[in-house]
Amino acid sequence: MTKTPLRLGIVGLGTVGSGVIKMLNKNATLLSARTGRQIIVSAVSARSRSKERGIDLAGIDWEDSPVALAKRDDVDALVELMGGSEGPAKEATLAAISTGKDVITANKALLAIHGQSLALAAEKAGQVIRFEAAVAGGIPVVKALTEGLAGNKINRILGVMNGSCNYILTRMETSGLSYDEIFAEADALGYLEADPNLDVGGIDAAHKLALLAAIAFGTKVNFASVVLEGIGAITIEDINAAADMGYRIKLLGVSQMTERGLEQRMTPCLVSAGSPLGQLEGGTNMVILEGEDSGQIVLRGAGAGEGPTASAVMSDIIDIARGQRINTFGQPASSLVDAKPTTATTSAPFYLRLQLLDKPGALAKIAAVMGKANVSIDRMRQYAHDTDSAPVLIVTHKTTRAAIDQILNEFSKTKLIGDRPVALRIESI
Amino acid sequence: MTKTPLRLGIVGLGTVGSGVIKMLNKNATLLSARTGRQIIVSAVSARSRSKERGIDLAGIDWEDSPVALAKRDDVDALVELMGGSEGPAKEATLAAISTGKDVITANKALLAIHGQSLALAAEKAGQVIRFEAAVAGGIPVVKALTEGLAGNKINRILGVMNGSCNYILTRMETSGLSYDEIFAEADALGYLEADPNLDVGGIDAAHKLALLAAIAFGTKVNFASVVLEGIGAITIEDINAAADMGYRIKLLGVSQMTERGLEQRMTPCLVSAGSPLGQLEGGTNMVILEGEDSGQIVLRGAGAGEGPTASAVMSDIIDIARGQRINTFGQPASSLVDAKPTTATTSAPFYLRLQLLDKPGALAKIAAVMGKANVSIDRMRQYAHDTDSAPVLIVTHKTTRAAIDQILNEFSKTKLIGDRPVALRIESI
Repeated sequence: MTKTPLRLGIVGLGTVGSGVIKMLNKNATLLSARTGRQIIVSAVSARSRSKERGIDLAGIDWEDSPVALAKRDDVDALVELMGGSEGPAKEATLAAISTGKDVITANKALLAIHGQSLALAAEKAGQVIRFEAAVAGGIPVVKALTEGLAGNKINRILGVMNGSCNYILTRMETSGLSYDEIFAEADALGYLEADPNLDVGGIDAAHKLALLAAIAFGTKVNFASVVLEGIGAITIEDINAAADMGYRIKLLGVSQMTERGLEQRMTPCLVSAGSPLGQLEGGTNMVILEGEDSGQIVLRGAGAGEGPTASAVMSDIIDIARGQRINTFGQPASSLVDAKPTTATTSAPFYLRLQLLDKPGALAKIAAVMGKANVSIDRMRQYAHDTDSAPVLIVTHKTTRAAIDQILNEFSKTKLIGDRPVALRIESI
Repeated sequence: MTKTPLRLGIVGLGTVGSGVIKMLNKNATLLSARTGRQIIVSAVSARSRSKERGIDLAGIDWEDSPVALAKRDDVDALVELMGGSEGPAKEATLAAISTGKDVITANKALLAIHGQSLALAAEKAGQVIRFEAAVAGGIPVVKALTEGLAGNKINRILGVMNGSCNYILTRMETSGLSYDEIFAEADALGYLEADPNLDVGGIDAAHKLALLAAIAFGTKVNFASVVLEGIGAITIEDINAAADMGYRIKLLGVSQMTERGLEQRMTPCLVSAGSPLGQLEGGTNMVILEGEDSGQIVLRGAGAGEGPTASAVMSDIIDIARGQRINTFGQPASSLVDAKPTTATTSAPFYLRLQLLDKPGALAKIAAVMGKANVSIDRMRQYAHDTDSAPVLIVTHKTTRAAIDQILNEFSKTKLIGDRPVALRIESI
């Protein structure tokens, strides 16, 4: 071993930061064999110095200021595990770049908002920013996309990238309990962010999707244009009805480059119950990368947690230790083009659930509205009922979201539809 | 673009070689953006110059000799797609290394047999050998293991790595036809190697498993010690009986480092029908990497075919174009240790299918044999029958292969077991 050690500075010592230090310690021999050098931690910084973390920080300097840590001469690479798109995480990242350090981050919010400017700054300074841990926890999906499938034109990316949402949806299905009940359960188990809207509103998953889209399509990260719809409106009735027709409901991220522009959606969708996505239970994540030549590559693993996320951080650390230097989004940030987003999404079948008033001719009227909008019906079910309205499920043939919105609007004018009608896209996989 | 082009020499122009040239042509702009340089083909070599391949070879030199091609001054990297562990593939690889070229290969047999000496030679010469396409087609599993999970101690690798075998087994299940009938069908469809024993004997898949094990455990490739059992003895009765008890039969590769030594098996196993492996249909491949911290990472995709395999070759080409240089097995070949193989495999439940002669006390005698060998019964089924023997299925509690072999031996002495008894391991996932 003739190479100099790689010296890390770690800011943020939550479960992931602690996990990284544990892995560096217990796997030191293995890491030296694999990278040809020693990996050491020069300094750490976190909010509380006294907190018990189950790790030995002896011999590691403490810095109260993440920025001061980032600027230290004995740090070659900053490991940023604080989170948040603004404030100390961003400041420490910029300080590291400006003083000649590489940056490894698990911070999806930071990169989803500032990825383009940070990547530009890093590349101008000859440094790299890597972010495997920011997307889908322990699954090496950033590497698979940026390197493993780099020979392919990417056609589409799909994924379940928020384990908390998938936990809630699959628990609703197995327990038969309501969204509110399972939300409370997930919250009590500590599965939700301090601001749960980051999870159930789909924001966290949309950050991840936007990062993958930039790599896949050579576009500047464009989080703002992700069509975003959380899972808060999903009812146990929808979950049961979807199951009854052979589907499962997932908070599904989809990104594809179309003639109309870049399509990015993070919305609840129906997927076939027998597909790999349909079979995904609990907090597990799955990302499907569709390359023109590779075909569908399905990646599945833990989307969060100390070990899996630390494992992803470690892979970036090892890349840097090995001298594997790659542009943040797989090509120079200066060559990324504006995304030209479209909200006119690709056509698809849709699932509709209506409460239809029990009046003669009601169904005929609904069908006529759909016919007029050129939305044809693939399958329909009306269920027995003992109230004055009947639950009706409709699966349409392929149509557009715009046409669906139009018929929902027309439906409401008929005064025949009780409750809020539900319309969810059925994604083909 | 200030960097010089990467100049390739390709030996072997079957479907994969042609696929690589097609990808280089159609994705030239995208590849330049992603690698920062042009990738060109200086020369090609194949058995037949006149064969129609659907690719334009204008401007590319032709060499009759793969070795002469490998030695050319205008080749920076050799792309070896001929196959075979000896002869021209090995000679061209050695010629490339000795004249200062990197090597990209899809040749699992070559590396399974000569991987250690070739990696040593390459590393001594400062060259790299990369082989993403040698394992599981389009799935970037070599990269996931060598780089993505490099921070982890790897606990176990499992996988279905031969699409032809999985096709045969799943077709038997869906059609109810016999092994021989489906074997003939697969052969007619061109799914089998010229020597079908490479597929159905498990050799091809065992080559792949041995390569992954070397990376995972830091051991010299040891193909010779893989416990090898093909699918030729699997009957439709076993497939149906397994399904009846909630299992599917897969040709499963498993590798793990135990206290007894390195365990490598490529054998038909039962897996839970509801697991990702159990749900794998047709020619698709799946590899599961179990890292101590990452947990289970499941990778799934096409295991063969022009596009997927060419995509994997391209990822190695791109790595080299980008200057990403990594040791063949993830650490210096000189640091890989001898594998110390064990055939004393980890204990597991086993599935037994017996034809039990219809005599009073027969079952008691069988049960006594099992009890004496300390093999306890988890579940048992005896089926209705109109012959003089009854099919009996037994699922044991965890035991060893040695104990199973012992009871099979004792069974035969009882003269109560007709036909050949079947014993298959049940792998927990």
